[in-house]
Amino acid sequence: MLKCVVLLAIVQLTLTKGQPHHSRNETNMSLQRLTALRALMAAQPTALAAYIVPTADAHNSEYIAPADGRREWLSGFTGSAGTAVVTTDRALVWTDGRYYTQFQKEADLALWTLMKQSLPDTLSMEKWLVKNLVEGSVVGADPHTMTRDEWTPLQTALSKANMQLIAIPRNLVDEARVQLNEPPPPRPHNPLLPLSVKYTGKTAEQKIEELRSKMVEKKAAALVITALDEVAYTLNLRGSDIDYNPVFFSYLVLTANTADLFWGNGVLTDEIKGHLKWEGVEITGRPYEDVVGHLVAMARELSESGDCAKSVWLSSDASEAIHRAAAGGDSIKKPLCLISEVSPVALAKLIKNDVELLGFRNCHVRDGIAVSRLLRWLHVQLDSGATVTEPQASDKLLEFRKEEADFMGPSFETIAGAGANGAIIHYTPSKDSPTVIKRDDMFLLDSGGQYKDGTTDITRTRHMSNNPTAAQKDAFTRVLKGQIAVGSALFPQGVKGNVLDSFARKALWDVGLDYAHGTGHGVGHFLNVHEGPAGVSWRPYPHDPGLQPQQILSNEPGYYKVGEYGIRHEDLVETINVTKDSDHPRAQHLVGDYDGRGVLGFSTLTLVPQQRACIDVNLLDDFELAYLNAYHKRVLDTLGPILEARGLADDAAWLTAECAPIARG
Amino acid sequence: MLKCVVLLAIVQLTLTKGQPHHSRNETNMSLQRLTALRALMAAQPTALAAYIVPTADAHNSEYIAPADGRREWLSGFTGSAGTAVVTTDRALVWTDGRYYTQFQKEADLALWTLMKQSLPDTLSMEKWLVKNLVEGSVVGADPHTMTRDEWTPLQTALSKANMQLIAIPRNLVDEARVQLNEPPPPRPHNPLLPLSVKYTGKTAEQKIEELRSKMVEKKAAALVITALDEVAYTLNLRGSDIDYNPVFFSYLVLTANTADLFWGNGVLTDEIKGHLKWEGVEITGRPYEDVVGHLVAMARELSESGDCAKSVWLSSDASEAIHRAAAGGDSIKKPLCLISEVSPVALAKLIKNDVELLGFRNCHVRDGIAVSRLLRWLHVQLDSGATVTEPQASDKLLEFRKEEADFMGPSFETIAGAGANGAIIHYTPSKDSPTVIKRDDMFLLDSGGQYKDGTTDITRTRHMSNNPTAAQKDAFTRVLKGQIAVGSALFPQGVKGNVLDSFARKALWDVGLDYAHGTGHGVGHFLNVHEGPAGVSWRPYPHDPGLQPQQILSNEPGYYKVGEYGIRHEDLVETINVTKDSDHPRAQHLVGDYDGRGVLGFSTLTLVPQQRACIDVNLLDDFELAYLNAYHKRVLDTLGPILEARGLADDAAWLTAECAPIARG
Repeated sequence: MLKCVVLLAIVQLTLTKGQPHHSRNETNMSLQRLTALRALMAAQPTALAAYIVPTADAHNSEYIAPADGRREWLSGFTGSAGTAVVTTDRALVWTDGRYYTQFQKEADLALWTLMKQSLPDTLSMEKWLVKNLVEGSVVGADPHTMTRDEWTPLQTALSKANMQLIAIPRNLVDEARVQLNEPPPPRPHNPLLPLSVKYTGKTAEQKIEELRSKMVEKKAAALVITALDEVAYTLNLRGSDIDYNPVFFSYLVLTANTADLFWGNGVLTDEIKGHLKWEGVEITGRPYEDVVGHLVAMARELSESGDCAKSVWLSSDASEAIHRAAAGGDSIKKPLCLISEVSPVALAKLIKNDVELLGFRNCHVRDGIAVSRLLRWLHVQLDSGATVTEPQASDKLLEFRKEEADFMGPSFETIAGAGANGAIIHYTPSKDSPTVIKRDDMFLLDSGGQYKDGTTDITRTRHMSNNPTAAQKDAFTRVLKGQIAVGSALFPQGVKGNVLDSFARKALWDVGLDYAHGTGHGVGHFLNVHEGPAGVSWRPYPHDPGLQPQQILSNEPGYYKVGEYGIRHEDLVETINVTKDSDHPRAQHLVGDYDGRGVLGFSTLTLVPQQRACIDVNLLDDFELAYLNAYHKRVLDTLGPILEARGLADDAAWLTAECAPIARG
Repeated sequence: MLKCVVLLAIVQLTLTKGQPHHSRNETNMSLQRLTALRALMAAQPTALAAYIVPTADAHNSEYIAPADGRREWLSGFTGSAGTAVVTTDRALVWTDGRYYTQFQKEADLALWTLMKQSLPDTLSMEKWLVKNLVEGSVVGADPHTMTRDEWTPLQTALSKANMQLIAIPRNLVDEARVQLNEPPPPRPHNPLLPLSVKYTGKTAEQKIEELRSKMVEKKAAALVITALDEVAYTLNLRGSDIDYNPVFFSYLVLTANTADLFWGNGVLTDEIKGHLKWEGVEITGRPYEDVVGHLVAMARELSESGDCAKSVWLSSDASEAIHRAAAGGDSIKKPLCLISEVSPVALAKLIKNDVELLGFRNCHVRDGIAVSRLLRWLHVQLDSGATVTEPQASDKLLEFRKEEADFMGPSFETIAGAGANGAIIHYTPSKDSPTVIKRDDMFLLDSGGQYKDGTTDITRTRHMSNNPTAAQKDAFTRVLKGQIAVGSALFPQGVKGNVLDSFARKALWDVGLDYAHGTGHGVGHFLNVHEGPAGVSWRPYPHDPGLQPQQILSNEPGYYKVGEYGIRHEDLVETINVTKDSDHPRAQHLVGDYDGRGVLGFSTLTLVPQQRACIDVNLLDDFELAYLNAYHKRVLDTLGPILEARGLADDAAWLTAECAPIARG
């Protein structure tokens, strides 16, 4: 699943449908919500000239739970990205090109203004506020919903213009919901799932020991872990509070000899206590809501030492509210020193241990079985004249995955795009008016599974009757060339992922084609399918520490012909050290190791064939053809015997045909 | 000539010679200088705990005049990069891997400590100060010698540690020199050279009009131009105050209706007055030294309006001193608003106009003649058994260039490296103990010319008896493949240059080789051979506005085998729009224009053949071979008739042989 960074080009992708009509009822409801919020803004000790409602939850999660759907409730706009600003007489949402059409369908345009942030002429929220508010204005926001990295520049810009950004302790949208008798759904605190060391490869004790030794190096008295996947990783626990992301709402605060988990009401079940005991850690459970008070009290205690030797370490992606609390809030005269930078947990879980890597390899075998079976099933259905819709294909894939060991659920909502739908990069199949997959269609299927031993994310694109046009075949092959270029690249250890991005585009660029998203994202181990801080894109990942062995990345170039079809080939790969003896197609030609820096390459985890009918073999050079044939041989050698052993002879036969060596015409 | 960004690997390059012995006399002199500086530090109103002596001059020039060689005088270390810090009992220089050996030879190691800034464990200057000075310390620096972009973070870091960074109005090193009766050489204010519109393509009036309309857009009351090449560009004047860089010490301050040039004693000659009049601009000459006072007075005047509507615009690379003066210094209560960002002059001169481009193309023809003649001459000499040293080759090249029209001098000090010297990336041939170029040597020649119609910069690498080893041939060809990959690339308009860097490395990376410098730098038009703000490197150029047509860049991959040889192929290229009808090897295959963004490619300006004996044709694919042959045909078709017309039959015959089509074995 691609992590979208959207270019202008995308703007056109979704601008195909008309502007809907808003009923009087909807307008009334929308206005009522705005009015309630404005009344609360006016009722603040200093009346607010504007109130900011970002999408994010208190943990800077990429995907949020319904309890945090504040901007959605207020504006009606349900897109996954966007920031609302409400003033006394205006209401605006800044969002990107993926969502322009959706915004116009969902929001009441009599009340709400769309700010197209992908367009160069659109004022940023910061500039809009400076331009449209009068000097002396006070802008409010819930400091839980903005990271310090977002808060500080906005605060600086406003104060330069003689305005103020102030933190409003209680979320005004939540208050408005209560007032209007539409309270937010309760925050889930679903049961926790212990993950055995047989899957994680490292106990919580070991992980926390490593963090504590880093704390000693940094002279940090405490480490505040705020990202949900980082808490889950550290404690070898998983949850289900956010769809597709096996995480749970929590904070974890470590000191040299304490570990406090802020979760639910603070009461851990005997099972979880037993797990943590087995993991070798002593954890104090505390109510989720107590984290701010706890941090302030801790800061007060630490500040008695009076110097920077006692500092608190947290991610610069932690919320402004947590930063303030960790510094002592208003309770101490001189705020405590903070170390606010990339989280050490993020850097630790970026490098997968041997057990995690083995799990990734194993679950990709099972996932390859499920996806291959789905592809054959789909061809068989369409060939036999049956009707299959996008959601039906998605459901069937889930069925196949459920047959696999340790499957826990999809890792994101399946993108199943037939024909023109495939060109909509973040497409979700509609269940209300499902699109039928036609035999003439290119069909793009981007899906993934959460397994106890790893997370998968794969895209394959098929022409449903093996009969692509010349242009489709050309684009399909160029995207494949890009994927092979990345998959087979060698590069010095320590370079940032962005240096690889152009390799994926070259074959497309050569003929004037491109794709409007990055080439690769990190992937969590039975955790979030998008995981920082590394990635492969033309835009630098600012916290990428440089590529090292044992990372997991996606490799997913694409091409999208608006209104016609989309093509994407996505594999997950692991980074490996390459020497002359390695199992890598370039190993034997090595004559150096970049002056001692070390040679890195990739090993592909994903095991599903590429559609031979869509490949123009004349566009592949000898290396690429050999690479592709070797990959198909590996797919067949790995999956074939399993299919046979399970008695799935038809699937095995299909796979054998799909993986047969491709020869030059 | 490459713009060096140095990796760790380079550290080893120059660590070959022993550590020299410092005489008692030298030590005494070095100590005397430090002692004089320390006395001045102690005599400040608040005694300084440390004083910073950067390399830069007041204009952030890459190369400096002897008048600005302060760090060099103080430390004895003559490298082109490095910052000295002197405390009451320590003296240190931070510099990069190019200069470790040189530092150890030149500086008195009993007094000076080398801080190897390329090593990850070396504390930065900022961190060293914070760690080694006591709380409350005051650090001083001449605010003319640091840009605001350097000053602000240092100031922030020091004040976080309860220290101060203060601006010392008079340069303490200059004062120490005067006290010790070794005053700095006078700052040159050499005669100015008017450059006719026949070369510049745009009058000073047009250039200033364009800047003024940008000032209106930005609501800037004044624009302060501080970079020397930007003043020269704006006024269509050239100078000779810094070796190889045709610039003159000056500042230019524009308002809506005034233009003040701070230069020399402020008196412009009649010739220059006439030139400026012809150019359509009225310029007030003022003494160079008056700029600070003038800016403060201007700020005072502007501040009377009392709001940000009257702001002053300047480059964030302008010095801290100029920033302070432009904001009004201490003379007004509320400092004036500044717009401190990439200079609009830098962005303007980045895009060459049609006349400049024509000049670039033309001077590259003449430069190609000179370099080709030198290469033949060198082979003839060595073949005949004559002895030629590196400086002799360099001198001979200058002779050939002097025969060409509009030649004004070299654009940088020639790098002529035979054998192992070729692997020293910023090598300068020694005149005292010149190295003889041997027939067994690979010989790397990186040189350039300043012509009235443009600037050249070319590197060619030759095996002097056409008899390279297999490894040399392999590396030579891989570097060439990288150069062709960049030279033939197509890419969307607006991408930053860094996305192209990996193309240049791929053929080397595939076998574990790399080079420790960037791939391309911008080039001025009869101006500095290194020109920002764009470039091609794995490191982003933060102010690169994205590639556009009509830029000039170098394309110079390399490979350096320490202790044996160096290979670099450097061409200058211009960026061009490519459509199906363009003269570009990929034009006919275009099927898109990146969704309207537009297709960019390069056209190579440099016209000198690559040595056929060093090319392993089996490593070239069909496209690369055709590209190379087409290039050689163009070189011969362009230069051959000129050589013939000049009666240089032997040169013409040599070129014909060098440019003959290369066929597969």
